[in-house]
Amino acid sequence: MEQQTVTNITPYLSEWKQSLQNNMIGKKLSELRTPSLVIDKTILERNCQQLGKIHTELNTNIRIHVKTHKTVEAARIQLEGAKSDAIVVSTLAEAYFMIESDLVKDQLLKQVLLGFPITPDKFDDLFKLSRKVASFQIFIDNPSTLDALESYCRLRNESLKANVFLKIDCGYGRAGIPVDQEESIELARRLQASEHVNFLGIYSHAGHSYASQTANAALEYLENECNSARAFRDRFEQHGITIKTISIGATPTVKAIIRFMDDARIKSILQGITEVHAGAYAFLDRQQVSTTLGTLDDVAVSVMGRVASKYPSRHSILIDAGGLALSKDIAPQGGFGYVLLDLKHKKPVATVSKVSQEHGIITDIDQELFSSLHIGQIVHIVPNHCCLTCACHLYYVVIEEGNDTVVDVWVPVKGW
Amino acid sequence: MEQQTVTNITPYLSEWKQSLQNNMIGKKLSELRTPSLVIDKTILERNCQQLGKIHTELNTNIRIHVKTHKTVEAARIQLEGAKSDAIVVSTLAEAYFMIESDLVKDQLLKQVLLGFPITPDKFDDLFKLSRKVASFQIFIDNPSTLDALESYCRLRNESLKANVFLKIDCGYGRAGIPVDQEESIELARRLQASEHVNFLGIYSHAGHSYASQTANAALEYLENECNSARAFRDRFEQHGITIKTISIGATPTVKAIIRFMDDARIKSILQGITEVHAGAYAFLDRQQVSTTLGTLDDVAVSVMGRVASKYPSRHSILIDAGGLALSKDIAPQGGFGYVLLDLKHKKPVATVSKVSQEHGIITDIDQELFSSLHIGQIVHIVPNHCCLTCACHLYYVVIEEGNDTVVDVWVPVKGW
Repeated sequence: MEQQTVTNITPYLSEWKQSLQNNMIGKKLSELRTPSLVIDKTILERNCQQLGKIHTELNTNIRIHVKTHKTVEAARIQLEGAKSDAIVVSTLAEAYFMIESDLVKDQLLKQVLLGFPITPDKFDDLFKLSRKVASFQIFIDNPSTLDALESYCRLRNESLKANVFLKIDCGYGRAGIPVDQEESIELARRLQASEHVNFLGIYSHAGHSYASQTANAALEYLENECNSARAFRDRFEQHGITIKTISIGATPTVKAIIRFMDDARIKSILQGITEVHAGAYAFLDRQQVSTTLGTLDDVAVSVMGRVASKYPSRHSILIDAGGLALSKDIAPQGGFGYVLLDLKHKKPVATVSKVSQEHGIITDIDQELFSSLHIGQIVHIVPNHCCLTCACHLYYVVIEEGNDTVVDVWVPVKGW
Repeated sequence: MEQQTVTNITPYLSEWKQSLQNNMIGKKLSELRTPSLVIDKTILERNCQQLGKIHTELNTNIRIHVKTHKTVEAARIQLEGAKSDAIVVSTLAEAYFMIESDLVKDQLLKQVLLGFPITPDKFDDLFKLSRKVASFQIFIDNPSTLDALESYCRLRNESLKANVFLKIDCGYGRAGIPVDQEESIELARRLQASEHVNFLGIYSHAGHSYASQTANAALEYLENECNSARAFRDRFEQHGITIKTISIGATPTVKAIIRFMDDARIKSILQGITEVHAGAYAFLDRQQVSTTLGTLDDVAVSVMGRVASKYPSRHSILIDAGGLALSKDIAPQGGFGYVLLDLKHKKPVATVSKVSQEHGIITDIDQELFSSLHIGQIVHIVPNHCCLTCACHLYYVVIEEGNDTVVDVWVPVKGW
C-alpha cells in the first residue's frame, strides 16, 4: 500500500485573525501597511448573488470554487449568494479548513470536491474527510489511481465508498480523459462497477475559455464544452454506464450564461448539464475584464500600494507592490495591473509595466498625473489574476461600497 | 507628519516550526506531502563559502540578501560563509525577524539594510529597529522622502540619525537616481548635510546582468556597473560630497568575480568598490544556470512533486506542482522548471511546460520515460527563480548531500 502523507495546516490562524481584526477594523485604508490586499465585500456579494440566478432561473446546480480566496468568510458569501451547498477545493488544506469551519455545522456546506486528481498518498485524508462532511468527493482520471484506491480499501477494510467524479477533457487539455479512447470507456465502467466507489458522473473545466474576448466567444466556448460533455455522456451510456451528474464550467462561460440568461439558446445549450462551477467570478480581475464579461466595477479585489519614489528623468514611478504582492501572472492587456487612485470611481490612470520581487514600476502615465503623485500616496492596483494575487497575501482587508474604512479582516488557509 | 503604519509579523512561527520539525525530521522525502520545497544545505553552504573568497582574497566586504529565503537559518549560513555581518532585507517583516533572532545576540549580524526606498509611513519602524541593531540602514533616492524624514525627526525630537544609502541607478532603470542630473548632486549634498542623517554612501543593483549568457558577458556588466558607480562617486566628490561606501552587485556579476578571481582585471574592475552584495547566489535557480555561471549541481533549491496523472493520448503528464508551488516566473530556457528524478544526479529529463494554480504539465518528455513514470512517483523541479519560488512556501524541508532524509525544517517570515 502506498505511503500516506499528512496535510500540514498552519495553526493559530484564528488567533492571528483576531489580532489583525483588533488592530485594523475601523481604521482607514491609508493607516495600513502596504502592500495590502483589499476586498470590496459589496461587490463580492453582488457577484455571488448574480451567479445564484443560474440556480433560480435555470434550475441548474452551482458549485463554487474557493481556491481564489481560501477563506471561510468568502465561501459563506458564495454559498449563500449562489444558493449552493457544494464547493471545489484545490488542496486538502482548504478541504480541512472549510470542513472544520462553521459552514458544515450551519448546514451550508454538504459537498466538497478536491478539484485535482488525487494521488494515492492522500487516501488517509480522503477517508478522514469523508467522515466529516456529507459528501467528500474526488477526481479520478487514471486507472492506476483506481487500482491503488481499491487496494487501499481492501487492505484497510474501508467501509466507506469514495465519491468519484471522472474528470473529462473537453478541449482544455490540462487534466481529464479524452472522449475517443477505448481506455476512457473502460475506466468509466470500472468506476461504476467498483465496490469501493460511488460513481457520481463527469466533470469538465473549460479553462481555454479565458481566451474569450467577447461575450459571444464565451458563449461559443460554453456551447462547445456542453456539447463535448454530452458526447462523453452519450458514449458512456451507450456502453451501459449511468452518468448522474454532468458538471461543467469556468468563469467566462458561466458569466456568459448570466449575460445570455434570457436568450432562448441558453436552455438548449445547458440541456442535460446538471451542475455548473466557477471560481474567479466572485472576485474577477483584469484578465476577466479582458473577456468583456465583467467591468472594473465588478472586480472585488485590488492591491493597495504606495508611491515609494519618482524618477522624472526616466518618467518612472516606483510603487511598493511588486511580484510578491501582485503575482507575476500575465493578462492580455499587458503589464501587471491597472492603477487606480480611488476604489469608488474605478478609472485606470496607468498600468504597472514591470514588477520584480518588491518593486512595481509605472511608466505608462501622463505627465500631469506624474507630477501630481506624491511620495507615500496610496494607489490601488487591479491585479491580472485574482487567484494568484490572493495567494500572495496572508490576510485580506475587507471594505464595503468602495469606502476606505476597514470593516473586517479575513485570513486564508495556505499550503498543501 | 505622515500617518505611521505597523508591520504585521505572523505570530507563532517558532511553535509551528517546532511541530513541523517533530513531524518531519528523519523522514524520507517520499513520506512528505507534495508539493514541498526542498533545500540542500550542503550546496547552500558551498555556495556561501565560495562567496566568502571575495572577502578573503580581494578584501572587499560582502553584504548578503536574505529576501530569497527569509529564514534565520539560511542567513546564518550566508553570514558565516561569506564572513559578513551585513544583510539586505526586502521588507520590514524580514528586518524584525532577523534583528530579533539570535543572529544579533550572537554578534553575527550588525548591519541591516532595508533594500527598498522607504516610505514616510515607516519611520516609526525605522527608529524602532535602529535601537535594536548596531546599524539599521535605509535607501533614500528622492528629496521628498528626505523632507519627510527631517520633519518627522524634528517633530519627534528624534535623537538618532538615520543611516542612509543614496540609491543610484547604474543602468538597470528600476530604482535609484541618475548620474547626470543636477537634482542628484543636490540630494547627495542634502544627505551629507542633514543633521538627521548619517550618510553612508551609494548603492547600486545591476539587475540587468541577469541577461548574461556567458561569464564574459557578466564580467562586462560588472565592469560597467563599477565604472558607473565610480562616475557617481567622482561627480559627488567634485561637489565636496564624501562617499565612504560604494556597494554594487547582483548574482551574475558577483559570480563573475568568483569565476575570474585570479584574473588581473578583477582588482582593477573593483577599484574603489567597498562592498558587493548578492542574494540568489546562495540558492541559484534555472535562470542563474542560463547565465552559465552556475550548474545544476550548484542549485540548492528544488520543488518536490508527484505524478498525479498520465494522458497517453496527448503525451502529457500531470504533476501536483503548479503555479502556486513553482511561481509563474519565467526563464530564458522557456517553461517553468527542469524535471529531475533524483537530487544526487541532477539530470533534467523533461521541462514543466505549462502551469496553472495547482497543475504542472509536462509534455516535453521521451516516450520511454513517459511509459516508465507511475502515478504517485516523486519528481523534483528546478524552479526558474529561487526567490519567487521560496515565497510560495510556508516551510522548507532541508536535506544534505542530495540524500532523501529530512535533516531540518525551516520556516520563513512573510508579509510586509
